[in-house]
Amino acid sequence: MASSNKFSRRSFIRTGSLGIGALALGPALSAFALSPLKAKKKLGIALVGLGSYSSGQLGPALQHTKDCYLAGIVTGTPSKAVDWAKKYNIPKKNIYNYQNFHEIANNPDIDIVYIVLPVFMHKEYTIKAAQAGKHVICEKPMALNAKDCDEMISACKKADRLLSIGYRLHFEPHNMEIMRLGQQKVMGEVKHIDTGNGFTYNGDPNAWRLKKALAGGGGLMDMGIYSIQGSRYTLGQEPVAVKATQQKLRPDFFKEVDETVFWELEFPGGLRTTGKSSYNNDWSYLKVEADMGNFGLGPAYGYGSIEGSVNGAPMKYPQIVQQAAQMDDFAQCVQLNKPSRVPGEEGLKDMKVVDAIYKSLDSGKWEKIG
Amino acid sequence: MASSNKFSRRSFIRTGSLGIGALALGPALSAFALSPLKAKKKLGIALVGLGSYSSGQLGPALQHTKDCYLAGIVTGTPSKAVDWAKKYNIPKKNIYNYQNFHEIANNPDIDIVYIVLPVFMHKEYTIKAAQAGKHVICEKPMALNAKDCDEMISACKKADRLLSIGYRLHFEPHNMEIMRLGQQKVMGEVKHIDTGNGFTYNGDPNAWRLKKALAGGGGLMDMGIYSIQGSRYTLGQEPVAVKATQQKLRPDFFKEVDETVFWELEFPGGLRTTGKSSYNNDWSYLKVEADMGNFGLGPAYGYGSIEGSVNGAPMKYPQIVQQAAQMDDFAQCVQLNKPSRVPGEEGLKDMKVVDAIYKSLDSGKWEKIG
Repeated sequence: MASSNKFSRRSFIRTGSLGIGALALGPALSAFALSPLKAKKKLGIALVGLGSYSSGQLGPALQHTKDCYLAGIVTGTPSKAVDWAKKYNIPKKNIYNYQNFHEIANNPDIDIVYIVLPVFMHKEYTIKAAQAGKHVICEKPMALNAKDCDEMISACKKADRLLSIGYRLHFEPHNMEIMRLGQQKVMGEVKHIDTGNGFTYNGDPNAWRLKKALAGGGGLMDMGIYSIQGSRYTLGQEPVAVKATQQKLRPDFFKEVDETVFWELEFPGGLRTTGKSSYNNDWSYLKVEADMGNFGLGPAYGYGSIEGSVNGAPMKYPQIVQQAAQMDDFAQCVQLNKPSRVPGEEGLKDMKVVDAIYKSLDSGKWEKIG
Repeated sequence: MASSNKFSRRSFIRTGSLGIGALALGPALSAFALSPLKAKKKLGIALVGLGSYSSGQLGPALQHTKDCYLAGIVTGTPSKAVDWAKKYNIPKKNIYNYQNFHEIANNPDIDIVYIVLPVFMHKEYTIKAAQAGKHVICEKPMALNAKDCDEMISACKKADRLLSIGYRLHFEPHNMEIMRLGQQKVMGEVKHIDTGNGFTYNGDPNAWRLKKALAGGGGLMDMGIYSIQGSRYTLGQEPVAVKATQQKLRPDFFKEVDETVFWELEFPGGLRTTGKSSYNNDWSYLKVEADMGNFGLGPAYGYGSIEGSVNGAPMKYPQIVQQAAQMDDFAQCVQLNKPSRVPGEEGLKDMKVVDAIYKSLDSGKWEKIG
């Protein structure tokens, strides 16, 4: 029962220096040796849509994956097909366009189809991919609204295919630690959460992201999903109501979609958290106050370096290729036929919140979620 | 899909300042209100054995518990009974000695019996307590050997009572983080573990801890359990073999029991970890090297402050009353009728390692565990 409280951080003494490490494992131990793990087949992924996320993130990440590889592409732009085929050594038989996409059903090289299209096309191509017999990863936001998410989930269930949403941060060490700290109440009860995600949009004014019919919305759909996720996965609970307001400083640029949105989420038990999203502010943080201290992230949600702290002490976890970890995890799920930890239902939960935020922006009132 | 990588740690803006926080929750939300949680009964714990661990740790910790309270005591020393009754306001009907201990079966105030006796008495009193219809916590080391552990587990199963071993560190935030980092491979594959636990024993030379028949062994039984645990819970695996050596600098003091023991554990897959225990060195550390960095604790295992680091950055988790967290968790297990996360089987696993270490000290060879 007794144990010393005294601090002792001696030099790293390996008992090898005491003669133990040098001893060979005797023959009696051969029975303990494990047979080498059966070499697993790497699953083939096809990227559908070769925009900036595919070219800047997913393509490069697939050079770091262990359980899957870039087997095919689907693009409507012939010059991209040529470039990708050359860069990633993709055989012609694994390159599709949107006219012959259905033929992917007959291609055994492709196990998983990753939908990286504008939001309004997510539903159609997720369902087509599942019906073609492929497991599906769909980028976030999952769809234009919660109703579409329901249809996608049903279609994948009916086709007996796994569906996962591109929530890379569920595989990122700093964000995973936030989930543990909050959900396991390591610092006691969470008393407040404030989080924001946004960037200053100065790109093409004709981009699909700025068209409501194509993107479903603006900063809220694209960046706000992360802030909604941050509150949800810190608490491990689903919000029940929301009240939102918005701000538009560049109405000529953001003609159809929201620019900056502020909201307050109410969780069961009464806790209210604040969140925000923007296409006109550089935000990427999560701050949590709990009974026994505080913790948070900043940058919290980007593809690059994630930094975090607990009571002022920095987190020093590895910076990983998030999308590689995310895709490898899904490949493992497919191999084991088990649901992803970020299934379609996770995307649906966020879209219910998004729908309620837009409703609250219209009504000016608190709105029930779900 | 886009997300900013830019660092942004703005001042803690609460959207309340934007007018949202002030809005009252409308009547439409009353449906979301949860009914207040049913007030739970605090379970009654009786401590069996009022030595230094009970007086210095468990008695005080029971002033911090939320789900259980100090309801009774069992002692062979009448003066201790008087002192404890006064200090903790324990009614006479809840005070037992070793002659009338069996009558505790008729006492509805006592839900849990905590065995805090010398090791050789653990088996007898664990079995007696379970047969008296009480759930049991037994201090570590669980028993004199693995065979006795088996009997204790069987007896509690037969009596349909829960059994937990006093592994307080499974409820301690820094140690829990070590379990996560290692088991979830947050820093990649673990490449090496070195850990030690010990203190310089200068107490009563006639203490039961120095008698082999009463304590089962010396520093290995008392302190080494923590080092064994450290390797086991960092990896989340069971070792398959061990090789050990020992050192005795004060043979006149440690006549019957081991003073300082060094060992190497082999885990499935071939990883070897080093550990040590002592009654003649002040050690309390755990050092882990993994593919993507290092992490560790020091002090690692004491009752007091635990300090840890990840890649050189300090952990800043709360310092908690470990035994209070441990006892509250067991009280919750009893309420929910679910096994403790440190059941008798956990104590058995350590004792199999301890048995193999003593065997290796005798044989001078690698010994199979279990």
